[in-house]
Amino acid sequence: MICVLSGGTGGAKFVDGLRQVMPAEEITIVVNTGDDLLWWGLYVSPDIDSITYVLSGMLSRERGWGVKGDTFLCLQAMGQLGEPTWFHTGDRDLAMHILRSRLLAEGKTLSDATKVISDKLGVRARVLPMSNSRVETRVDTPVGELSFEEYFVQRWYQDPVNSVRFVGVSDAEPAPGVVDAIASAEAVIIAPSNPVTSIGPILAVPGIHEALLKARGKIAAISPIVGNAPVAGPAGILMKAQGLPCSIAGVAQAYSDFLDVLICDSRDARSADALRKNGLRVQCTQTIMRGADDKAALAREVLALVSAGLLNDQPSSGKSVGSLEPQP
Amino acid sequence: MICVLSGGTGGAKFVDGLRQVMPAEEITIVVNTGDDLLWWGLYVSPDIDSITYVLSGMLSRERGWGVKGDTFLCLQAMGQLGEPTWFHTGDRDLAMHILRSRLLAEGKTLSDATKVISDKLGVRARVLPMSNSRVETRVDTPVGELSFEEYFVQRWYQDPVNSVRFVGVSDAEPAPGVVDAIASAEAVIIAPSNPVTSIGPILAVPGIHEALLKARGKIAAISPIVGNAPVAGPAGILMKAQGLPCSIAGVAQAYSDFLDVLICDSRDARSADALRKNGLRVQCTQTIMRGADDKAALAREVLALVSAGLLNDQPSSGKSVGSLEPQP
Repeated sequence: MICVLSGGTGGAKFVDGLRQVMPAEEITIVVNTGDDLLWWGLYVSPDIDSITYVLSGMLSRERGWGVKGDTFLCLQAMGQLGEPTWFHTGDRDLAMHILRSRLLAEGKTLSDATKVISDKLGVRARVLPMSNSRVETRVDTPVGELSFEEYFVQRWYQDPVNSVRFVGVSDAEPAPGVVDAIASAEAVIIAPSNPVTSIGPILAVPGIHEALLKARGKIAAISPIVGNAPVAGPAGILMKAQGLPCSIAGVAQAYSDFLDVLICDSRDARSADALRKNGLRVQCTQTIMRGADDKAALAREVLALVSAGLLNDQPSSGKSVGSLEPQP
Repeated sequence: MICVLSGGTGGAKFVDGLRQVMPAEEITIVVNTGDDLLWWGLYVSPDIDSITYVLSGMLSRERGWGVKGDTFLCLQAMGQLGEPTWFHTGDRDLAMHILRSRLLAEGKTLSDATKVISDKLGVRARVLPMSNSRVETRVDTPVGELSFEEYFVQRWYQDPVNSVRFVGVSDAEPAPGVVDAIASAEAVIIAPSNPVTSIGPILAVPGIHEALLKARGKIAAISPIVGNAPVAGPAGILMKAQGLPCSIAGVAQAYSDFLDVLICDSRDARSADALRKNGLRVQCTQTIMRGADDKAALAREVLALVSAGLLNDQPSSGKSVGSLEPQP
């Protein structure tokens, strides 16, 4: 069993690769819900949606979000009714939000709703929200405090960022199964997601950080930063706002308490060497996922690390984790 | 000011004609809400929707319901999620239901929500729900008691009908403006809608029947029955279940307490004569509305009756209301 901590964009790509190279039943994904929003009164969970869509083969790979081949007539009609349209919910996509909202209104938890929807869509991996409590990522900017989706989607992450906070997180609990999934997994993989607003909220839920500390010896993270820039999105700006350099060193720092191996792009080989000198094990490979082959290749390399027992190797053991060449 | 009591199908056609021949600002439509349903957790008000769509020029005239040119991708996706799909909500149509549901969830009344939506769609006529209280038309059949939409849409009105009741109606109040609209109108026109399940719920709201009794002298009804059969839908079956013959006599009987003039199709001239012998004024004309011209022509004839003062003529006055030929 592999446990992945994930946001919705880079994380969904990685999960897309993983499901190609191992049985989906053996993957548990713990998903960020800090971006969740009430949109037109419907409960939308963007990262759970992306992960669910990628696992059911429905994700639009062109856009990286929403349902492939979707149309946007309801969105247009909402615009005619004077409602906001900056968050692009497609017509097929709406079904997810309508059903989830109804299940929540009936008193079901987000975990329950996620499972109902996963089952209906034939998803065999296990998708767990990080928490069933409402945690809201808020981004403080010169124009005021914004929800993550306002900052990211509505305003195209153009605002300078003063700070980020996760409202409600101190009262939140991990959703059922999350701590167990971390504890019982053969390996915990932190997907190449934004360390601040995708993985950050997960780590901030009381109990999850502790579970990761106990899981030391089996934790790898894939850097979403390549060559001192994020592969996509505002990770760089947000990392700087949180006092982290926009580099693989910044990613390592974000996860320093529990990280065993950092997986970074081959372009960062020199930075990787510097990190190794500080005692961190670092694996360089191609991390940018342009197509299905790239995704599968990265997933395969991660699984090779896991099955070779390299995550819990000590640097002193003499085995190199600097390459995937078979060891003598 | 003309006040129309209406359901969603024949009523919408008549309103479509009326708006072509008089200023929409001078029309108030009191609409049946007994068919309202929670669909996928969204509040759908089929008759208010049809009336709103016809007044905004959005109604699909081919189907007689929903938005013209609409698509049904969300419906398909809901089917994939295992949700029922027998009630055909289009993608554009969904915007109406989502917005109304949000407004109601925020504590607005159905009147408020209807006005917000009407205003946004540029509807200049006034659309009033019969009541802001929940009234549910229930149809008792050998397979059990069904909601109206289950009976009508899901089961294609194939079940024999034992009886019809309007759950909640005894505690309902007319929505704001309804009694006033009836009292202050120059004429009250009962649209060619099903007397039992479209007009019946309106009449059953305490206070509306009384308002109509006080409005005698200005009330006309257009028969939805032509040649002893309904123009469309289950009116005949439902009338029989309520002890009314499926004929213009049955329509006259349904409204006997307050009706001044019955407008029926020329095909029913002989039945009309029989009703006249019993003292009812009856106007024969072409009531079947196949296209825009038919709708406008019927609306014009109704308005001619109103402006000629024929609704409040007494049969003893010597004027004929049996035809629209100019009187000597």
